[in-house]
Amino acid sequence: MIYFVTGNRGKFEEALGILGEVEQRNIGYPEIQAEALEDVAVFGIWDVLKRLAGPVMIEDAGLFIDSLRGFPGVYSAYVFDTIGNDGILKLLDGVKERRATFRSVVAYGEPGMEPVLFSGELEGTIALEPRGSGGFGYDPIFRVGEKTIAEMGLDEKNRISHRGVSIRALKVWLSSR
Amino acid sequence: MIYFVTGNRGKFEEALGILGEVEQRNIGYPEIQAEALEDVAVFGIWDVLKRLAGPVMIEDAGLFIDSLRGFPGVYSAYVFDTIGNDGILKLLDGVKERRATFRSVVAYGEPGMEPVLFSGELEGTIALEPRGSGGFGYDPIFRVGEKTIAEMGLDEKNRISHRGVSIRALKVWLSSR
Repeated sequence: MIYFVTGNRGKFEEALGILGEVEQRNIGYPEIQAEALEDVAVFGIWDVLKRLAGPVMIEDAGLFIDSLRGFPGVYSAYVFDTIGNDGILKLLDGVKERRATFRSVVAYGEPGMEPVLFSGELEGTIALEPRGSGGFGYDPIFRVGEKTIAEMGLDEKNRISHRGVSIRALKVWLSSR
Repeated sequence: MIYFVTGNRGKFEEALGILGEVEQRNIGYPEIQAEALEDVAVFGIWDVLKRLAGPVMIEDAGLFIDSLRGFPGVYSAYVFDTIGNDGILKLLDGVKERRATFRSVVAYGEPGMEPVLFSGELEGTIALEPRGSGGFGYDPIFRVGEKTIAEMGLDEKNRISHRGVSIRALKVWLSSR
């Protein structure tokens, strides 16, 4: 059984669907200000390992927009809560280069071993306007092919999602030991 | 002698001008993701106290824009490095409500005592376009009265700056003990 430390039920359910043996623990951990998700995850997992005995995992994700130098990046949650999708679209008003990447980093640790990181990416573009009612966060403005993530069914989203990729990478690693 | 832990020479010199007995130490500390400068400062000063014996201080500041729910707030440095003043002006394009506040929090600690916090604020508005060549960061778009901070002389800026207020509050506290 792995303890997944997160306050986000959606993240936990995505992990549950892939890993099976996982339990949500909402005990929090300090997230540092750093430009790389990896730094945030490594700092966090060491903190969690001090407080929970047993296999533990955390996950951090962000939206990185090329023409905005990676903004909102590791601060995606805060930026969504303040300026939201409307703010992102306003920043890209008149901008032709709209490439963006969703990135996810999973950190996994056990007492007495160095934590291991797994990452997943999903490349797309920022739409000209929000479309679709599924998903959450930036999903309505993140386009892959002709659809935004919010226009996809849950199965389709889970198959391609950055978080799905990073969690499946953990699963493969666990079963190959 | 107080150790001021910062990598920012400008901040250090502002403190030196006010406090006199202060020495710069660029040893870094983890800045957590939190919505309040106070949380970032308290977490940071405990970390610094573990590594430096003696009186220590750190300072964290941010620009809080009312109509953007406080954005960019504690992430002001990162936001400046990515979307910059142009991004802020784009987000406020067509927005009439342009009130904003510069906030500074100083944390001061000594071994064996609870850290103490001091804060300073400067209220203003976001200009319609950048003006002036002084200062740094958001100074060219932050207006107080008829001038932006970047249009003020250093003396004028230091007299009203949020950082000046918080550092002078520390000075008053120190001399009243």
